[in-house]
Amino acid sequence: MAIIAIIGAGMMGSALAFPARENGNEVRLVGTHLDREIISESQKTGKHPKFDTAFPEGVKYYQIEDVEAAIEGADLIIGGVSSFGVEWFGEKILPLIPEKTPILTVTKGLIDTEDGKLITYLDYWQDVAKKLGKSLSLNAVGGPCTSYELVAHDHTEVAFCGKDIATLSRIRSYMQTDYYHVSISTDIVGIESAVALKNGYALGIALTIGLNQSERGDDTPHYNSQAAVFGQSVREMSRLLAFQGADTLDNLAVGLGDLYVTVYGGRTRLVGILLGRGLTIDEALAELNGITLESLVVARRVARAVRVSAERGILNTADFPLLFHIDSILNEKAAPDLPWDSFRFEYTK
Amino acid sequence: MAIIAIIGAGMMGSALAFPARENGNEVRLVGTHLDREIISESQKTGKHPKFDTAFPEGVKYYQIEDVEAAIEGADLIIGGVSSFGVEWFGEKILPLIPEKTPILTVTKGLIDTEDGKLITYLDYWQDVAKKLGKSLSLNAVGGPCTSYELVAHDHTEVAFCGKDIATLSRIRSYMQTDYYHVSISTDIVGIESAVALKNGYALGIALTIGLNQSERGDDTPHYNSQAAVFGQSVREMSRLLAFQGADTLDNLAVGLGDLYVTVYGGRTRLVGILLGRGLTIDEALAELNGITLESLVVARRVARAVRVSAERGILNTADFPLLFHIDSILNEKAAPDLPWDSFRFEYTK
Repeated sequence: MAIIAIIGAGMMGSALAFPARENGNEVRLVGTHLDREIISESQKTGKHPKFDTAFPEGVKYYQIEDVEAAIEGADLIIGGVSSFGVEWFGEKILPLIPEKTPILTVTKGLIDTEDGKLITYLDYWQDVAKKLGKSLSLNAVGGPCTSYELVAHDHTEVAFCGKDIATLSRIRSYMQTDYYHVSISTDIVGIESAVALKNGYALGIALTIGLNQSERGDDTPHYNSQAAVFGQSVREMSRLLAFQGADTLDNLAVGLGDLYVTVYGGRTRLVGILLGRGLTIDEALAELNGITLESLVVARRVARAVRVSAERGILNTADFPLLFHIDSILNEKAAPDLPWDSFRFEYTK
Repeated sequence: MAIIAIIGAGMMGSALAFPARENGNEVRLVGTHLDREIISESQKTGKHPKFDTAFPEGVKYYQIEDVEAAIEGADLIIGGVSSFGVEWFGEKILPLIPEKTPILTVTKGLIDTEDGKLITYLDYWQDVAKKLGKSLSLNAVGGPCTSYELVAHDHTEVAFCGKDIATLSRIRSYMQTDYYHVSISTDIVGIESAVALKNGYALGIALTIGLNQSERGDDTPHYNSQAAVFGQSVREMSRLLAFQGADTLDNLAVGLGDLYVTVYGGRTRLVGILLGRGLTIDEALAELNGITLESLVVARRVARAVRVSAERGILNTADFPLLFHIDSILNEKAAPDLPWDSFRFEYTK
């Protein structure tokens, strides 16, 4: 039995309490300052307000003021913040974590640099740790996993990535269950890039649903056009993985599985449909009560990095027509008008 | 304007009459002996009995007895038979086609040989033509396209493959519309393999839907497990394309787009769901009124070829756990019990 502290009681952090606790570990779920009500309600009812199912018996709940007590003696810290909490996690939480305690984060995203590179959040936090004079074991979860289906014990395949395979193996031993299947990989850039890159592309696929709704006034799904955009996403994601030096088959499989689940599972789908119907990004976000979407941030950053790298002669923007169309919808309020003909290829063997 | 004869009035052959005729070509739709009622009804009503939309004005309909008149003067012959009509098409139709007239077939599938190879239908027909002492231009359509969504003018991306790029370009000029987008490739083995291989895998993804229905008694889709099987399908399909000497990014994108559409679009999905619920293959086919499914044939052939090639040391069966599980359900009436843990990987950079 291990002691696992989860920092961040959003849906994904909280969902990991299920396999963690069911494996017999002591689980301490800590809300951030944004999760105050989630923790209060969980303390009272034993249930996360957004889940249908109660937490497993025995999970302990902590408000942020008690985070140090939660970290005390922990064998694993799970970072459960969204990409909007990345800086906060670096500033407030990393200083509290002992060097020997591994960290596993669920935060998906990439940060673009001025010279057109895309770096992972683990890179970013590693720099923060270095400035604190600390050496931390930073690991991350990637792969297709929606929180509510993990809670429902649907079979789920994910990959843990980090620098040290033995540490990854130990973290897996805490977390893996008969429904939560864990691969391990030291290719941090590969796994983290694969699962971040899919965001803009999921939005692109969902666009076709909204486009068909507005053009036909019906709710038929029309999978031919979804599949066409999916196929183009395979091309562009694979090229971006190659740009990251990480175009292995496993990375691509993790990223495409994640793309598949994101088209169906999340808020990105809803935004994509609204944009496809012709709403501007501001109108779409207003309709969705101003929710902030990680996927939009990542799509913009990736487009920016590709543009800079193209100016430097490293990439060719013509290889990414879908990415740039999505970017123009998000940043220039362009109308959804997928560049179908640019998805075609002509190949002579 | 060209003259296009379509031999086979099933759904896919008939759907191609839409872009063909809308481009101003003369279109002659010929039913096989199995399509007699389809042709009679189309002659009477101008509508295919399985489509909601009438054919474009001016399509001409022929019973099989008039096939020679339909072929006379044609600039393109479209072969619209299913894989169960492959031999018939070789025996009865190829002898009627002049050498100068290109053929474009929609038939998806592969044939396994005794020494563990997988050959395309174009290879098979090329052999038939050779025995007839003829040299024919055999081309094929691959890519994600369900017939009823092509009829609905949903944006569709396909690839035409054949030996000669100039011929492919000419066929594309007859067929391409503002919603039917056509890539061209001389990699016949790559395109044909990609779109055939996806069949068993689509069934594997659909299994999870039925498994969840029987285990939970609900109709929630549960996309985590679908995505997990999708990710494993990416791995196995890519390995099989490599086995075929054809693992290019475009071939993979065409195959995965086709996998995506097949999970949602067709009868393979229905069979997969029934098998996932625990029906045997015979019970599932009985429930579906004994329909014969091309996808089951392909899955068996591919599994057989992989097994023979593994015995010869060319492939490793451990790389294909999903394929062999599907094969055991189809051939040994095995219960659906996906080998989740064998989908995991462990990678040290």
